[in-house]
Amino acid sequence: MSGGKLLQPEELKQSLLSVGPERYHHKHPFHLLMHEGKLTRRQLQAWALNRYYYQSRIPVKDAIILSRSTDADFRRAWLKRITDHDGVDHPGGIEKWIRLAETTGLDRAAVISERSILPGVRYAVDAYLHLVSQRSLLEAVASSLTEMFSRDLISLRLDALRQHYPWLESGLMYFTARLTQAPEDATFALDYVIRNAHTRAEQNLVIAALRSKCDILWAQLDAIHFAYVTPGWEPPASFTGTEA
Amino acid sequence: MSGGKLLQPEELKQSLLSVGPERYHHKHPFHLLMHEGKLTRRQLQAWALNRYYYQSRIPVKDAIILSRSTDADFRRAWLKRITDHDGVDHPGGIEKWIRLAETTGLDRAAVISERSILPGVRYAVDAYLHLVSQRSLLEAVASSLTEMFSRDLISLRLDALRQHYPWLESGLMYFTARLTQAPEDATFALDYVIRNAHTRAEQNLVIAALRSKCDILWAQLDAIHFAYVTPGWEPPASFTGTEA
Repeated sequence: MSGGKLLQPEELKQSLLSVGPERYHHKHPFHLLMHEGKLTRRQLQAWALNRYYYQSRIPVKDAIILSRSTDADFRRAWLKRITDHDGVDHPGGIEKWIRLAETTGLDRAAVISERSILPGVRYAVDAYLHLVSQRSLLEAVASSLTEMFSRDLISLRLDALRQHYPWLESGLMYFTARLTQAPEDATFALDYVIRNAHTRAEQNLVIAALRSKCDILWAQLDAIHFAYVTPGWEPPASFTGTEA
Repeated sequence: MSGGKLLQPEELKQSLLSVGPERYHHKHPFHLLMHEGKLTRRQLQAWALNRYYYQSRIPVKDAIILSRSTDADFRRAWLKRITDHDGVDHPGGIEKWIRLAETTGLDRAAVISERSILPGVRYAVDAYLHLVSQRSLLEAVASSLTEMFSRDLISLRLDALRQHYPWLESGLMYFTARLTQAPEDATFALDYVIRNAHTRAEQNLVIAALRSKCDILWAQLDAIHFAYVTPGWEPPASFTGTEA
């Protein structure tokens, strides 16, 4: 992990950016089906329901990162993520995700109950909390850099969802908010990582942390795809929603 | 720890309140000397310097508590503590404490460096972070309930400091802010604890957590008192400030 000479800031940025095409979940078969309009309403429900678990743990993840910094400037900047997601004076990201899930036809209480979350989704999200707790603060910050890639995916997704699933329109405010929030957050985190990865070994750890985060996103879709798209099988405690 | 029958809300409140007279640090010899005007400027400096370590870790402690809750309502309420202390649109508690330390004649950089923090102070504060990480969320919240007692101590201290150390006046805004913040925070935490301690065993754990927190405050003053008040001895890496 320590091989090579120190990357210049622009080189480190390019190395981080190259992780996107390599393994960001925009290429996952489940997303490809979504963007082609080939998912049923039930499959969209399963996605919204399971992904809620990820959404619900984002402020927990950010509070862990907050708790690991003794720099008040850093904490002041990072706090925005928690208020964006929990919503202080206005509906936050979690509430917006619940509304998306409701728009797919799910009951709010069923979503919040977390009863039907697939084990694979749960483990992946819990692995994210573990990553930000156990690896260095630098790596924890770097793991958030999937936000560098999310704007393009969300733009594409918004177009695709509006085209193929027009009945979802009123539930899309989560994504429209993230179009501006994610790049702001990514800019801060990228700057932090570039300033604080002082050795090539640290730079390599930072790149590895971003790869790990991509895996965490990917694995959630694997679990959903296997349970709700792959024919002929369904998990024991599977979500039973309204058939499209 | 599980003995006895369930306490009614008012009984639990009275049990918690009784911890104050028993072991809150208003009775510590160091505070008694302060309130009688018997501390030198150097001893006040040692107090401000060491207590900075406690202040600086409060948002870390609150972020740990934040990270342990999956309830967005709880997080929204608890977040106020972090913004109060870090200061988002205005100087927060940490900045106000630094200004108090500066008013005693200390250099800001020396305070922030944490170089001269006594080991005993450090261990006590670290024990607080450990408590909120490792005990239940309920106990972590309960440990904050020393705020029920702080208003009276701060009122007394403000009067005493103004009388005996009038040159400290311009540094007292930390305490004037806490006069309103602490009771607000204590009200929320007390309500939470009463609603969430469902068994006598949990109620006992809650009371024990408040005692532990009192010990954490007390032990900090022990370390300061032994190093800077007890005659004839000084710790190796002791703070060397301006003699009064």
